[in-house]
Amino acid sequence: MTEAKLKKYAELLVRAGGNVQKGQLVVINVDVNDARFGRMVRDCAYDAGASEVFIIWEDDSSVRERYLRADSSVFDTFPEWTVERFRHFDESGAVYLRITSSDPGLLAGTDPDRRMRAAKAASIATKPHAKLMMDGTLRWSVCAVPSPAWAKTVFPDLTEEQGMERLWESILKGARADGEDPIADWKAHKQSFVKKVEYLNKKQFTSLRLTTGLGTDLTIGLVKNHRWVGGGGKTKDGVETFPNLPTEEVFTMPDRNKANGKVVASMPLAYNGNLIEDIIIEFKDGRVTNYSASKNEESLKNMIEMDEGAHRLGEVALVANSSPISQMGILFYNTLFDENASAHLALGRAYPKNIEGGGEMTTEALTAAGGNDSLIHVDFMFGTADLRVIGIDENGNETVFFDKGEFVF
Amino acid sequence: MTEAKLKKYAELLVRAGGNVQKGQLVVINVDVNDARFGRMVRDCAYDAGASEVFIIWEDDSSVRERYLRADSSVFDTFPEWTVERFRHFDESGAVYLRITSSDPGLLAGTDPDRRMRAAKAASIATKPHAKLMMDGTLRWSVCAVPSPAWAKTVFPDLTEEQGMERLWESILKGARADGEDPIADWKAHKQSFVKKVEYLNKKQFTSLRLTTGLGTDLTIGLVKNHRWVGGGGKTKDGVETFPNLPTEEVFTMPDRNKANGKVVASMPLAYNGNLIEDIIIEFKDGRVTNYSASKNEESLKNMIEMDEGAHRLGEVALVANSSPISQMGILFYNTLFDENASAHLALGRAYPKNIEGGGEMTTEALTAAGGNDSLIHVDFMFGTADLRVIGIDENGNETVFFDKGEFVF
Repeated sequence: MTEAKLKKYAELLVRAGGNVQKGQLVVINVDVNDARFGRMVRDCAYDAGASEVFIIWEDDSSVRERYLRADSSVFDTFPEWTVERFRHFDESGAVYLRITSSDPGLLAGTDPDRRMRAAKAASIATKPHAKLMMDGTLRWSVCAVPSPAWAKTVFPDLTEEQGMERLWESILKGARADGEDPIADWKAHKQSFVKKVEYLNKKQFTSLRLTTGLGTDLTIGLVKNHRWVGGGGKTKDGVETFPNLPTEEVFTMPDRNKANGKVVASMPLAYNGNLIEDIIIEFKDGRVTNYSASKNEESLKNMIEMDEGAHRLGEVALVANSSPISQMGILFYNTLFDENASAHLALGRAYPKNIEGGGEMTTEALTAAGGNDSLIHVDFMFGTADLRVIGIDENGNETVFFDKGEFVF
Repeated sequence: MTEAKLKKYAELLVRAGGNVQKGQLVVINVDVNDARFGRMVRDCAYDAGASEVFIIWEDDSSVRERYLRADSSVFDTFPEWTVERFRHFDESGAVYLRITSSDPGLLAGTDPDRRMRAAKAASIATKPHAKLMMDGTLRWSVCAVPSPAWAKTVFPDLTEEQGMERLWESILKGARADGEDPIADWKAHKQSFVKKVEYLNKKQFTSLRLTTGLGTDLTIGLVKNHRWVGGGGKTKDGVETFPNLPTEEVFTMPDRNKANGKVVASMPLAYNGNLIEDIIIEFKDGRVTNYSASKNEESLKNMIEMDEGAHRLGEVALVANSSPISQMGILFYNTLFDENASAHLALGRAYPKNIEGGGEMTTEALTAAGGNDSLIHVDFMFGTADLRVIGIDENGNETVFFDKGEFVF
């Protein structure tokens, strides 16, 4: 990938994704192996006027070795200084930019019990930070870069070099970052969400019925005064950001007590360094009653058994089958991409912005309104080229607004 | 450099340097560019039974960019979470392993005022941690690996590849890590210090007169009950470590009020990312009265003006001219190596282990005994092939125990 193309991608992350303003602290999370791109993002952040750029270097290989070789007791705690670090950055009004390149099978063969304990300790300790990330207080954006292991998973028949190049091309295309002026392309892209969001917010369907040829048949209630959101949005201080590069979804808040039926996943789910395949989940009155997977069911179990909220839905998102990622026909084994190729649901915490006035609600008020709370928020994909969605209003009238994988209003 | 040789070097750092014991937390500081060697050290630490290995990834290029581009205000503070992190590691009984590869001119052209403010803020905030490092509570060890910029400074006429290979060879040779069994070599090396240390501790000279052909003529008093130390030593919990790989010096504690005369440096000093050349310092009654440098005198000024203790001596160290590093005749522009080629003095804080019972003394008691306290501890080299040291006892009797660059008892 050429220096010039990478620079445009880095600028997209800084200027459109996190929308860094003059005088702001910028925090970048990036793997040691991606130092070259991480430093480009750093330089773009200084160009944008950042007061300081702090890089949190990550190292996937050390994460894996720790799961394999550290003492079992270390997975029950999450060091206070890490929480203190988030607090410091959060209070400084940091913009968080995350660059991911994870091997989808990074943690294959590690002890699921260790992973579960570590994930739980981290979720509990970082809950205040996660709340600020989700309620629109903090500005953040995530993008992806390839790694050899990831490229091998996506393109098993290519050489490492070919696979890396192909994955770079696919990522830039999927993230609409391969044009002459990606920042302008994203401005135009943002406009395409307006019609969908306006239509759905006006309709205020009380429930949705989702059906696919794979066997999904699920009816979910939506909370009263729910807001459909898509194409980025404003944080509380009024700055436009795109939390995800790419983003193709419009999404809203299900009622935590209203989901009935069955959902059959249409893609594997990369969760906590493992690939969970052929997920099927059944719901009654909003709660998971049954679940299975053909591979790594243990990981699925650990996820759902995390807490009560992990048994319930926090997000329903629709993606047109004509989205560029979907059209590429590539399974990325990476939620950032796969969720933008396919309609999906999230188990766990809801986004406060998906309900009118949610940003100012306490957790208790949100829960009372039907919003879900949990230590986790995990998207899983069920959308297909034959997905149909029926909106049902308060009088029981049905409207097919999404059919054969596309919006049809 | 071959994998096998690197592995031996990593093992030397873990097993002899830090002497990692079963069940201990190990903290590794390493630059992102040296990830390969850092991960080898990590794996050796797990092999040695570490309960957990935490890597603090550093990035020289981001340090430089921060000095050049961050807002001026950030250099006056040192984030509390970093202090909290030290506290967490210190209280967990961590073993610190540091891998350095700095470009000696990394910070050339950056604002000396920013550097001074940052160094001061860091020194103040980390003083409790630095005390535990120096008083024998914490186990730690430092080693070096080459970087292209460092290799270019040392071997300006070689290509990058040749320079890196040559610097690797020089480092491993200088660190006595190029043999079949470096750990055994270090056990033997340790024995060579015993005779020197025993002789000097028995003599209990009240002062030393240091003279060289370059113009050094300095008489320094030593504190009462001073201890000469060399070849590593035991931490308070009785574990043998080698804080520096390499180590060739024997050193003790000057009286902070007793230094008179002039010292002429025999090598440039790499301090805070700048090379200070041709240092000359004059002392009266222990305190710096005059100083100069032909290059980067500003850095020398910032160092000495840090606080009162930076105007006084905290260490005097002797190194035989026959040491392997000295014999290589290479100027490393790196204190870890250059201080082990040459006799040196340190401005700033004294090591409590250099006085009888020092590990249990309060800072006040140490100061009262003549031990120096400061935010800094910076070694600078003055030893030459014609260095002569005269020991003077309490009755005024003189003994030449070091002459023409060698110990002569």
